[in-house]
Amino acid sequence: MTTPALPARILLGPGPSPVDARVLRAMSRPVIGHLDPLFLDIMDEVQELLRYVFQTSNRLTIPISGTGSAGMEAALVNLLEPGDTAVIGIHGVFGERMADMAERLGARVVSVRAEWGRPLDLEAIEDALRRERPRLLALVHAETSTGVHQDLKNLGRLAHRYDALLVVDAVTSLGGMPVRVDEYGIDVCYSGTQKCLSCPPGLAPITFSERAVERLGTRRRKIQSWYLDMSLIEKYWGAERSYHHTAPISMIYALREALRLVREEGLEARWRRHELNHRAFVAGIEAMGLEMFVAREHRLWSLNTVCIPEGVDDQRLRKRLLTHYNIEIGGGLGPLKGRIWRVGLMGAGSTRENVMLILEALRESLHAEGIHCPSGREAAERVYQA
Amino acid sequence: MTTPALPARILLGPGPSPVDARVLRAMSRPVIGHLDPLFLDIMDEVQELLRYVFQTSNRLTIPISGTGSAGMEAALVNLLEPGDTAVIGIHGVFGERMADMAERLGARVVSVRAEWGRPLDLEAIEDALRRERPRLLALVHAETSTGVHQDLKNLGRLAHRYDALLVVDAVTSLGGMPVRVDEYGIDVCYSGTQKCLSCPPGLAPITFSERAVERLGTRRRKIQSWYLDMSLIEKYWGAERSYHHTAPISMIYALREALRLVREEGLEARWRRHELNHRAFVAGIEAMGLEMFVAREHRLWSLNTVCIPEGVDDQRLRKRLLTHYNIEIGGGLGPLKGRIWRVGLMGAGSTRENVMLILEALRESLHAEGIHCPSGREAAERVYQA
Repeated sequence: MTTPALPARILLGPGPSPVDARVLRAMSRPVIGHLDPLFLDIMDEVQELLRYVFQTSNRLTIPISGTGSAGMEAALVNLLEPGDTAVIGIHGVFGERMADMAERLGARVVSVRAEWGRPLDLEAIEDALRRERPRLLALVHAETSTGVHQDLKNLGRLAHRYDALLVVDAVTSLGGMPVRVDEYGIDVCYSGTQKCLSCPPGLAPITFSERAVERLGTRRRKIQSWYLDMSLIEKYWGAERSYHHTAPISMIYALREALRLVREEGLEARWRRHELNHRAFVAGIEAMGLEMFVAREHRLWSLNTVCIPEGVDDQRLRKRLLTHYNIEIGGGLGPLKGRIWRVGLMGAGSTRENVMLILEALRESLHAEGIHCPSGREAAERVYQA
Repeated sequence: MTTPALPARILLGPGPSPVDARVLRAMSRPVIGHLDPLFLDIMDEVQELLRYVFQTSNRLTIPISGTGSAGMEAALVNLLEPGDTAVIGIHGVFGERMADMAERLGARVVSVRAEWGRPLDLEAIEDALRRERPRLLALVHAETSTGVHQDLKNLGRLAHRYDALLVVDAVTSLGGMPVRVDEYGIDVCYSGTQKCLSCPPGLAPITFSERAVERLGTRRRKIQSWYLDMSLIEKYWGAERSYHHTAPISMIYALREALRLVREEGLEARWRRHELNHRAFVAGIEAMGLEMFVAREHRLWSLNTVCIPEGVDDQRLRKRLLTHYNIEIGGGLGPLKGRIWRVGLMGAGSTRENVMLILEALRESLHAEGIHCPSGREAAERVYQA
């Protein structure tokens, strides 16, 4: 290596999240062929572990060979045809992205909007379903741009009542908050590897219900994307093992190891850990006199959005965190640029140590900006003691 | 790790190819953020190194966040709109794949076909260009399914004479055989990382000429794929650094290291190495009394196709190579299944040691099938001595 070693950043932004050394080591194992019998066993294990984290028995449960956005595109391009109607919930960047993708595919998009920072309204969704009888309802469970948690309970039943498929973006929740695909009646759910699963970015876990698989068979036209065509991809991941594209071997090693870590911890224990560290962080932030962007009952555990106090230079403060503390946090996107910070406590990054560290680093960095806050650490500590 | 270590396979199939330990180590470095200033430097280095291996000064030269087939889809989805005509050369699986992709995008595909195992005919291509005046001409430089090398000289001039863009698939040639993008007048050229670049699979290097970039600006409709929209992707890789999707950080580390190895060896020296090992392998195969599938003047250096002798059980022999020798070679695809073997000597796998090993392992495995060949090693040795 001719360049100096990269510093091990403390990744407390909206992703990627910190990656366990076991996962990094798995990635550095020798590459084998994508049709090697040993690799086929690894694929089977990955599918089994993904069913566990998605809480589903869906046969078609695999990682797409692309990042979370490729998972989003795979969901939409497989289910939608030109002229289909899609009801899409939009309350942040990722809902907007879904609508953009669906329109590019020639679908008619009916959007149900909520203010950024607020969840979508169930009645507005039902009105749209009743009026439009769409092919699908798509929305974001964990809006990474705002920190809002969208309650998923009853949404499957609602969508199915109007003969629509339910598509859910769980990029920033899978592995960190409950995503019970079968119980919620989700037809297609996708995620990314670099959030609460704490694997490097590059794969998009996705699962299709039988209802969604049936949809593939009733299309009038071929799926516009060959690369994301699930009817071809499932022949490689399923019993036929027929070549589609060369699987990203090393990333699959990494994902297997990351998923094993989830299973070893236990999914419910992992959710509780994310919840606890989130609550401690919020207690600290509020004790410092800062304000959370999202109302208490709609906050994600994995991604915390904090309002930037008046008079603070967003860029300068984040640069200070990076250069003085080696900590990455995220800024706001679009209309929230300069208005919020996004603090991720995801996967291996969701620890008491990180909560204490970021609270103190924020306090000191705000001080450097001329804003004097009390420490938030005692308040956080009380959450852990309780 | 709870499972036994994977054996380090000797990868002499159609890809993935063997990966240098330096590249594996690079991949296991700590993950940093996709907007971290340190990562932006790495991106710049990767782009510069890709320009070198593509032999181009094209500004828009980046790795797509998907495998080689995602590169193919990126080329076509960015250039084609519904109703456009595409002339596509088809003389193997990957030409067929291009045509399938273009049709899915709503383009009218005019195919120029050659028998599998033969190159495309330049006159037939020119006839099609003259008659159809297509948006683009697309063909495969190195047909991984047949082992045929398509001469690229003059193709750019030819395509441009008829106002068509030239798209070239260099998945199995880039880094192992001359791919001089600027000199040949190629408008879009893409590859995969897991062939002659000897990086794990997962990224697709791609380059767009200024003429191809202009095409993006004259489209009537948005690009159907958001994930592969080069006008958005270039904003992240270019000066704006605006977020599109989370880059696959660890794979980019790996690609940088793999490209550094190419630069250290020197591109021309690397081409010569691939040529020499190919010639030695062929001399050995022919001395054994076996037959190459492709005529001498049209053979790839990176992927050798060998006719399977009458009476040999293809699957059994390849299984023997894998279990007795730890060697992976490829079988034939589609109509060539059971008729040819595909022996890759790509990237780090293109060595004298591997040539000698596979010749001997083939001889012994054929013996087990009841076919008695002389050794090919002396003939190969003579090539190295010459």
